[in-house]
Amino acid sequence: MPVSRDWYRKRPLTVQPPPGRGLDGSDQRMFVTVLLLLVALSARGGHSEETEEAQRPGHVSVIIVGATGDLAKKYLWQGFFQLYVNQVSSGNTFFFHGGGLSPADKGTPVLFEALKAVSCSKDVSQERCAVLKDQFLRLSQYRQLKTLEDYQELAKHIEQQLQEEGMTEAGRLFYLSVPAFAYADIAEKINSSCRPTSGAWLRVVLEKPFGHDFRSAQLLASHLGNSLKDEEMYRIDHYLGKQVVSKILPFRIENREFLDPIWNKHYIERIEIVVKETLDVTGRIPFYDQYGVIRDVLQNHLTEVMTLLTMKLPKNVSSSEEVLQNKLEIFSSLLPLAKNQAVIGQYQAYKSEVQQELNKTKDHVSLTPTFAAVLAHIDETQYEGVPILLTSGKMLDERVGYARILFKNDMFCLQRHNGIHCKPKQIVFYFGHGDLQYPAILVSKNLFKPALIDSDWKEVTEHTDVSVLGLSISDYYVQTPTEQREAYAELISHIFAGCKNSFISTENLLASWSLWTPLLSSLASSFPRIYPGGVDNGGLLDVRLKGRDISYNSEVVIITPDQMGGTSANDFQVMQGKFRSADMVSAWAEELVERLAVDIQEAAEAAVRESGVFHLALSGGSTPLALFHRLVLHHFSFPWRDTHVWMVDERCVPLTELESNFHSMHDHLLQHVRIPYYNIHPMPVQLNQRLCVEEDRGALQYEKELSKWVNGSSLHFVLLGVGYDGHTASLFPGSKVSEHGESLVALTESPIKPHQRMSLTFNAINRAHRVALLVMGKGKHELITQLSRVKDNLDKYPVTGVKPDHGTLVWYIDYDALLG
Amino acid sequence: MPVSRDWYRKRPLTVQPPPGRGLDGSDQRMFVTVLLLLVALSARGGHSEETEEAQRPGHVSVIIVGATGDLAKKYLWQGFFQLYVNQVSSGNTFFFHGGGLSPADKGTPVLFEALKAVSCSKDVSQERCAVLKDQFLRLSQYRQLKTLEDYQELAKHIEQQLQEEGMTEAGRLFYLSVPAFAYADIAEKINSSCRPTSGAWLRVVLEKPFGHDFRSAQLLASHLGNSLKDEEMYRIDHYLGKQVVSKILPFRIENREFLDPIWNKHYIERIEIVVKETLDVTGRIPFYDQYGVIRDVLQNHLTEVMTLLTMKLPKNVSSSEEVLQNKLEIFSSLLPLAKNQAVIGQYQAYKSEVQQELNKTKDHVSLTPTFAAVLAHIDETQYEGVPILLTSGKMLDERVGYARILFKNDMFCLQRHNGIHCKPKQIVFYFGHGDLQYPAILVSKNLFKPALIDSDWKEVTEHTDVSVLGLSISDYYVQTPTEQREAYAELISHIFAGCKNSFISTENLLASWSLWTPLLSSLASSFPRIYPGGVDNGGLLDVRLKGRDISYNSEVVIITPDQMGGTSANDFQVMQGKFRSADMVSAWAEELVERLAVDIQEAAEAAVRESGVFHLALSGGSTPLALFHRLVLHHFSFPWRDTHVWMVDERCVPLTELESNFHSMHDHLLQHVRIPYYNIHPMPVQLNQRLCVEEDRGALQYEKELSKWVNGSSLHFVLLGVGYDGHTASLFPGSKVSEHGESLVALTESPIKPHQRMSLTFNAINRAHRVALLVMGKGKHELITQLSRVKDNLDKYPVTGVKPDHGTLVWYIDYDALLG
Repeated sequence: MPVSRDWYRKRPLTVQPPPGRGLDGSDQRMFVTVLLLLVALSARGGHSEETEEAQRPGHVSVIIVGATGDLAKKYLWQGFFQLYVNQVSSGNTFFFHGGGLSPADKGTPVLFEALKAVSCSKDVSQERCAVLKDQFLRLSQYRQLKTLEDYQELAKHIEQQLQEEGMTEAGRLFYLSVPAFAYADIAEKINSSCRPTSGAWLRVVLEKPFGHDFRSAQLLASHLGNSLKDEEMYRIDHYLGKQVVSKILPFRIENREFLDPIWNKHYIERIEIVVKETLDVTGRIPFYDQYGVIRDVLQNHLTEVMTLLTMKLPKNVSSSEEVLQNKLEIFSSLLPLAKNQAVIGQYQAYKSEVQQELNKTKDHVSLTPTFAAVLAHIDETQYEGVPILLTSGKMLDERVGYARILFKNDMFCLQRHNGIHCKPKQIVFYFGHGDLQYPAILVSKNLFKPALIDSDWKEVTEHTDVSVLGLSISDYYVQTPTEQREAYAELISHIFAGCKNSFISTENLLASWSLWTPLLSSLASSFPRIYPGGVDNGGLLDVRLKGRDISYNSEVVIITPDQMGGTSANDFQVMQGKFRSADMVSAWAEELVERLAVDIQEAAEAAVRESGVFHLALSGGSTPLALFHRLVLHHFSFPWRDTHVWMVDERCVPLTELESNFHSMHDHLLQHVRIPYYNIHPMPVQLNQRLCVEEDRGALQYEKELSKWVNGSSLHFVLLGVGYDGHTASLFPGSKVSEHGESLVALTESPIKPHQRMSLTFNAINRAHRVALLVMGKGKHELITQLSRVKDNLDKYPVTGVKPDHGTLVWYIDYDALLG
Repeated sequence: MPVSRDWYRKRPLTVQPPPGRGLDGSDQRMFVTVLLLLVALSARGGHSEETEEAQRPGHVSVIIVGATGDLAKKYLWQGFFQLYVNQVSSGNTFFFHGGGLSPADKGTPVLFEALKAVSCSKDVSQERCAVLKDQFLRLSQYRQLKTLEDYQELAKHIEQQLQEEGMTEAGRLFYLSVPAFAYADIAEKINSSCRPTSGAWLRVVLEKPFGHDFRSAQLLASHLGNSLKDEEMYRIDHYLGKQVVSKILPFRIENREFLDPIWNKHYIERIEIVVKETLDVTGRIPFYDQYGVIRDVLQNHLTEVMTLLTMKLPKNVSSSEEVLQNKLEIFSSLLPLAKNQAVIGQYQAYKSEVQQELNKTKDHVSLTPTFAAVLAHIDETQYEGVPILLTSGKMLDERVGYARILFKNDMFCLQRHNGIHCKPKQIVFYFGHGDLQYPAILVSKNLFKPALIDSDWKEVTEHTDVSVLGLSISDYYVQTPTEQREAYAELISHIFAGCKNSFISTENLLASWSLWTPLLSSLASSFPRIYPGGVDNGGLLDVRLKGRDISYNSEVVIITPDQMGGTSANDFQVMQGKFRSADMVSAWAEELVERLAVDIQEAAEAAVRESGVFHLALSGGSTPLALFHRLVLHHFSFPWRDTHVWMVDERCVPLTELESNFHSMHDHLLQHVRIPYYNIHPMPVQLNQRLCVEEDRGALQYEKELSKWVNGSSLHFVLLGVGYDGHTASLFPGSKVSEHGESLVALTESPIKPHQRMSLTFNAINRAHRVALLVMGKGKHELITQLSRVKDNLDKYPVTGVKPDHGTLVWYIDYDALLG
């Protein structure tokens, strides 16, 4: 790095007000002139060498909309004061507008109270601090910002300031500390009346929530997009301003030498990202009950930490574009989150708090979770199978936040001795609080000694006797920031530096929502486990990871009957019977798929025992997906190495298209098992760069391939489905099945798009040793009822043509389809 | 099971000698007549319901060859006495021949001493024991067995016995307790002169060592095969007779319900199979120094335990054929063991013991390991990535043997509480000794409560306060045999029952040697780490698992300079330079491959960044294998998902043949990375069921595929090799390169088989953005020297035709090839 990111702090603060202009100067509008430095400089903690637009020194207008709200009072004014202190010698001049809905006479005194409370960091002398505070006060002013006229007024005022002082404008920073519903309106007013003069920047800062789900987030983004350019928006996630969080990427880069070999599935046992809170949500229920812990903490804060931990390292950590792009890539690799990847809880008192704050009756039940543990997986070779656990909750036993990378135990200690190298290996990004009380990065001493490049950080060597996540503090190398800084102050400095990689891009936001929205929907009617709160929770919220699924460990659930009602035990019996004079197996969907998977595996094993090979033909469509899932996740001993996979039918689209049956089978089955390349037999729907042209003789080619590999072209197992119209494979009602003659494979026509298909013929299907017809879902009930009555009628119900010559046919029908 | 395997023990022993024939009966040859039971019965602990040949009751001759040796004295006579006790009421009659090289007058008293020492189990009364011992003594006789005549004599004697007593012969059991070099000779004598009468069985028991490596084992097996049928041979591994070891499969089956979901890579953290001994090998050096710990313990005992733990469960545990077949399958799934999968050690005093016992001088160094830790991996979906550690050594801190299945920590405990469910989960098959002192199967209570079906086993609930492998004994469910039995007695009963699954089949033996032999060869000149012995070893022999590799954890090595000499630090510098006016990178092989892998990944990332896709063409042959290995094991973030793999050349053989370039690439690279099916582009050497026929236009088809996928048919990276004759791709000296014209792909002729090839042309190669020429090994030095001098000469040195039109060429030449 050509310029150390904190070199400015090593320079003495030499700026004094010019002589003759006393600290009690009467001109409250006066601009404090400061030394114009040789280079345009970025903010403290910012990335001076890389800001996307060169910082043109000049006048900066900061406008906090919602300047007298809680957030502003608690963090924002303090953050802007710190910005001012750090920038006072940067060549820029500032003015701070505190905007609010109240008229000036009401707002001014409230603002004044907030401004008076700002404080300097320890390295500033008291005297100097008094001077700076006084300057800051004089440069700040309350202003009503309600109507379009108010914004026009503001714009006029800024222009006046610029003219009066003869300054160029550097930029305008709007900080919207208002409810999200007001964003679009304010953005429009800014756009229409308050844009800065040409060449100066506009930055508009937004606070979460950024929507409630994917659609609302998209809607909000598109509304904002009407008024603001993407690069003008700064969406804040204050976790990205936490010193430990913002150190994750630099730490990973600085310690690449040690981390590169171990930052993968071979070494990482699991990743835990945990934020535990002791507080409840009283007073915030009207907001909280709409959101819950997943939207409040997991979708944003924990997700951001997860991406920082797992994203590909950027070549240039200062390149916002690259950082944001790499973050985005993680989302496309994340496996979807479904119900089985989450457990939720709700503290016991929440119910009555909701009843009280929302004026509900005693029988009102809220399903909003106040605790959640979610298990994520990244489907990349590097992290395949590494569990990533995101956990947060209210009313837990302690307040603490951390991300822990636990490494596999790769030591085998031959004797029982307590050498450090036999202990667990982990890296902990400790956000703060808890037993340690300060933010820190902890690295087990048996891993490596982390680099200490950044002078903002120091090593801690003197400890009280405290234990962190199972290891004594003395078993760690511990690094902590030399000076603890507030997240908001950090982020404000980044906004001022135009450094976008600490903020949530629209793409990132939508990617995150598209990850979380399906989970939120699938949990919408789930009952959270009720927990008493505090240490009394005991082991009640402990969770267990089962492959890709997560569940509470204990079966004990504290549910008062009035809260949840009785749960009816599902009956998972498998029923056997006859259907259309063939064998039938029926059960609830899950059990049915399990049974089918077992049957296929048994057939496979028998075939491999007998002939060394198993030929399996699979149908397209969505019905078999649950089966593929089951085979992948539970049938580890399936003899894939000796299995050949054939297609029952294919759509005439390139195999690489999502629509292709093969594509779906590839993504859900073939990619996840160890099946040799040669054993995979997609249908040759594309030949000579065109699709399913009769004269390219693709059907004949597949037929030849079949007869080459498969003894007597008799497949061992053919899995079929049935369409609502009674079609099976791609043999549709009204098609001239008899025209297929002796062919095993034929081009066919579908009534729905894409019309052209390639399909096994009945001739091929009925040669099979075993045929399974899988029918699932209430939607098929009508058809099943008809089929149970009609005679064979190939023209109307092609599926009735499935009649193995010498093999067996089994119908697998779930209770929904069978019973309606 | 229709018949409990120990029902016979529940019956009272009702057999008494017939009246008038006193216990002091003078006829030492007398056969003790016993009740003929209704069913032909198998031995105690045997598997009555499944023996491969129905046990025909009749006369059984047991012949121990080496009857007065240590093993016989210590275990065998006791084992056969127990067999006798258990079979006394089975309907069979017995005679025990103790054979030895000494004449009868010398052997008889020695044998008598051994026989006198046999004892009954606790459940037999003293009185009854005296009777049985007396009978046993009378049925046993010493006999010289040296020459062919001796064996003929023996045969005659047995026939005489049969005639005299009017008994049918049931079978003959030869137990060869002699050095392995005598096996073949004795087997020949048995075969030529001592085979039983028709319908009776012959069983010949052999003790390890069964060879020294694959070849010697094969030789021995083929010699024995000349005289004995496979089913007549019983190769003993006494670990298979240990009660805990022989319980492994039944335990896995009885607890299938619990184990099925967790017995796989998703749940198992690792498997440790450990046999620690405190003794040294003094007195056995002449044998031991030829073998070492790997041949002595790992190749047989630990390997057997490993197969029992990981083999597919047989449908029928009593089917020897199925059990042995399933065991065998594990071997074909084991990844090869190379130097990196083992560490070896030698206790410090070994050196002087060798010097003394082998009469060597003070500067004699033995490299025989007395300690080894080996890391095995099973390349099946079920166990992929699960480390299996096999460890054994002499002179360690304690005597103990166990197999431990450590499960992954699948719990996330939200609070710090000590519930059992937060503790480690493991199953320990404890062979005996150590802190526990008795054989047992231990299952962490937080896993499951194991079934207790077999009445030979009982649950232990009262413990002393002992800790086993990190958990208190009270944290386990503990099962132990109701009665401890000797391994040899167990195995003898299995031999008698004809139950082969407790023995090593020829196939199994050879499979095991083919696993271990390459490792033994690669370690042949390795220096073992010297360890002091006993508790002083401290952490010196602790090992660390690094992906698939293993190494000692500590760098401290106690090596006296006279023992090992100085080790010269290898220089792993990478050199850059020019070769044939193109860029050249040179280094030692390992470093060179690493560098090439990094360069390919960089090219891949750049291409994906720019165009979203990376087109890589790879050569066949053995040179790139190290590169594939490197990419698979170290380049987790390689963008395989966006990479297309093309072939530089292919042999005209089906892709499924071992000879095919694609096959090798498939097995070493493609199977191990997440590359979509569509991105794999094998050359179409087989079309219309024939190979490389010009009119099938396979070359044109590949050319079209290239131009369809690859922008301008310009591959991003082409990896080439060079043959000894200067060929590259499949472009050979003397071939008419000019005839390829504008083609990108052509059929070519190789001077060596298979002659027909398909290859990219120079036209295709020279369009590439980047071409790498990888040359490795001393064998290529001569060629490299020539190439450094000659001008371009396509006809003589086709490789000189590699001249990218617009791209770059880099030579990667290892020091061996460059410097010779």
